Amino acid sequence: MSQESTGRSEGDLRNTGMSLKHDRTWDYELDRIVDAVAERDASTVGLQFPEGLKRRGPRVADDLRAELPEGVDVMISGKPCYGACDLDTYLMRRTDVFVHFGHSPMKESEKIIYVPLFSNVDVTPIMEESLAELPDPDPTADAGERPAVGLVTTAQHMNMFEEMRAWLEGRGFDVETRRGDERLTHEGQVLGCNYASADVDADHILYVGGGKFHPLGLAMEHPDKTVVIADPVNNVVTVADTEKFMKQRYAAVHKAMDAEEWGVIFCTKIGQGRWETAQDIVAENDDAYLITMDEVTPDRLTNFGLDAYVNTGCPRITTDDGPQFKRPMLTPGEYRIAIGEEPLENLEFDTFHGTW
Amino acid sequence: MSQESTGRSEGDLRNTGMSLKHDRTWDYELDRIVDAVAERDASTVGLQFPEGLKRRGPRVADDLRAELPEGVDVMISGKPCYGACDLDTYLMRRTDVFVHFGHSPMKESEKIIYVPLFSNVDVTPIMEESLAELPDPDPTADAGERPAVGLVTTAQHMNMFEEMRAWLEGRGFDVETRRGDERLTHEGQVLGCNYASADVDADHILYVGGGKFHPLGLAMEHPDKTVVIADPVNNVVTVADTEKFMKQRYAAVHKAMDAEEWGVIFCTKIGQGRWETAQDIVAENDDAYLITMDEVTPDRLTNFGLDAYVNTGCPRITTDDGPQFKRPMLTPGEYRIAIGEEPLENLEFDTFHGTW
Repeated sequence: MSQESTGRSEGDLRNTGMSLKHDRTWDYELDRIVDAVAERDASTVGLQFPEGLKRRGPRVADDLRAELPEGVDVMISGKPCYGACDLDTYLMRRTDVFVHFGHSPMKESEKIIYVPLFSNVDVTPIMEESLAELPDPDPTADAGERPAVGLVTTAQHMNMFEEMRAWLEGRGFDVETRRGDERLTHEGQVLGCNYASADVDADHILYVGGGKFHPLGLAMEHPDKTVVIADPVNNVVTVADTEKFMKQRYAAVHKAMDAEEWGVIFCTKIGQGRWETAQDIVAENDDAYLITMDEVTPDRLTNFGLDAYVNTGCPRITTDDGPQFKRPMLTPGEYRIAIGEEPLENLEFDTFHGTW
Repeated sequence: MSQESTGRSEGDLRNTGMSLKHDRTWDYELDRIVDAVAERDASTVGLQFPEGLKRRGPRVADDLRAELPEGVDVMISGKPCYGACDLDTYLMRRTDVFVHFGHSPMKESEKIIYVPLFSNVDVTPIMEESLAELPDPDPTADAGERPAVGLVTTAQHMNMFEEMRAWLEGRGFDVETRRGDERLTHEGQVLGCNYASADVDADHILYVGGGKFHPLGLAMEHPDKTVVIADPVNNVVTVADTEKFMKQRYAAVHKAMDAEEWGVIFCTKIGQGRWETAQDIVAENDDAYLITMDEVTPDRLTNFGLDAYVNTGCPRITTDDGPQFKRPMLTPGEYRIAIGEEPLENLEFDTFHGTW
């Protein structure tokens, strides 16, 4: 295990973002919000935070209220939020200034202020440790002749991306990066549902960022590549291991092969709808029923009592939360396998393209 | 206990709606839906069912598909639904014909077909048993001089309302009924949040209908009245006992008296929004934060980490689900008590008026 090779357990928070959590100050870019309120002569401001940052909402509201003119109302979205695909459209449509924190724009909109909340954690110590899992570098070779490493990160660490690239180049790698498709804002950025930025000519991809959520998706999408995780937040280096997830996916597909009746979920979240995918399945299968919802949860599906479900919304609910559902829930591609339209070896990670 | 006086336990399903469940056929009024599709030249039909009837959705879709022209798409709402206050506005706005099952209209709309799904259970046997809990009738007295009994029921049993009234009158009661306010469609109808139809000149109210949800609310709203429950579905007669609920309410209010920071929930469901109530609280309290959401669940509030919450949405989430929340959640009236604006003896059930 690469975890062991670093000499630290995953829970060791020394010199990491986690241990600094209470010291560090995020930049909520309040000035941008205050300026927008003045420019638009706004009377209402809506704030949306991802789950992990909701607790900071009241403090941000305090700071904003102190700077905003009397009579401007600040509201906080209480709906779950898992990405820029997941804007609170109710609040967005009913406030003059709507601020979405913690994600980079999926689609630019004059209405929305996106505040990315960049991490200030130093990434180079953990990159140093990640060298043990990468090919041997060759600083003596010419650029273009050195060992290739793909480089990706998340919105939180995008501010360090050029620093990461320069560091790797300085160590003797050819660093392969690309921007991906229009769902992604930045060069080298990955989303939980989109790894087009890792479609580069390199067998090793170095993911620098917190958690395993993104690199596990990346490894499922690119099973031919070695995905090295340099996590500066939890201070650990690992190699993404998708075996558990893949076994769960195969088990779900096998179980669903016996299904007679299918629920086909169309997700109503602004950036998670794949209408044609859902429609096509229902049009071709008389035993499939189109069900619309925003949050896709075990309780909601259990109420319908169908044999299996196809989730055309967020693929990570299917792959990561799947085992919590009482009946098999498949991605659209897995559904084609379960009904015998595609062979089992065609099973692949469900990625999401386009914006809203 | 009146339960014992009937000689049957609450779980005894003989001769009840529950035991007939699989035999009985609901009238989904498919003809009305098919006609509306033809009239509007509709290409999409949305179906919304309350939680307990969602399982029937696929069967209703089957029957509809068999009758509808080729190419008309049927979609089922997968969002939770707890009343006509809780329309799936996403689906409603995106379908040509939108059918809401299981509730009577809160507000008439040309867009929506309301299908009430009347129960076919016989109500007279359980009304007979309920006599033991009512004042002694006096068939010999003139009308207007007999013992008074208020009569209420739910949308499901509205089709039997005149039969219930005639039966009680035949036994020697003056039956007091009223329509309530504009939130209610029918004379004698109650909702979980509105008991204006029980504002009648009678010390005893007879509730004929399934479950304790409605009569418990009624008894909390009218603590001066005796609420007799004649439940033809579970075949049991009881007298509503609000003690457990009231103790929980007092406990929640006491606990919230120590709160420094408040989350004020504005519910975005079409028939559950009390904007001015929420706004007023936030305007008066610098330590109150306005949070918007549709479903109000423990998880969603826990994320914010505030000391206590005021729910301006559905009062039944506050009173019935309150103990599941990690922090005290109060109704707007209870909040006024907790912050010392009103005395504790003013604690009363939170009712909901108006439509959407």
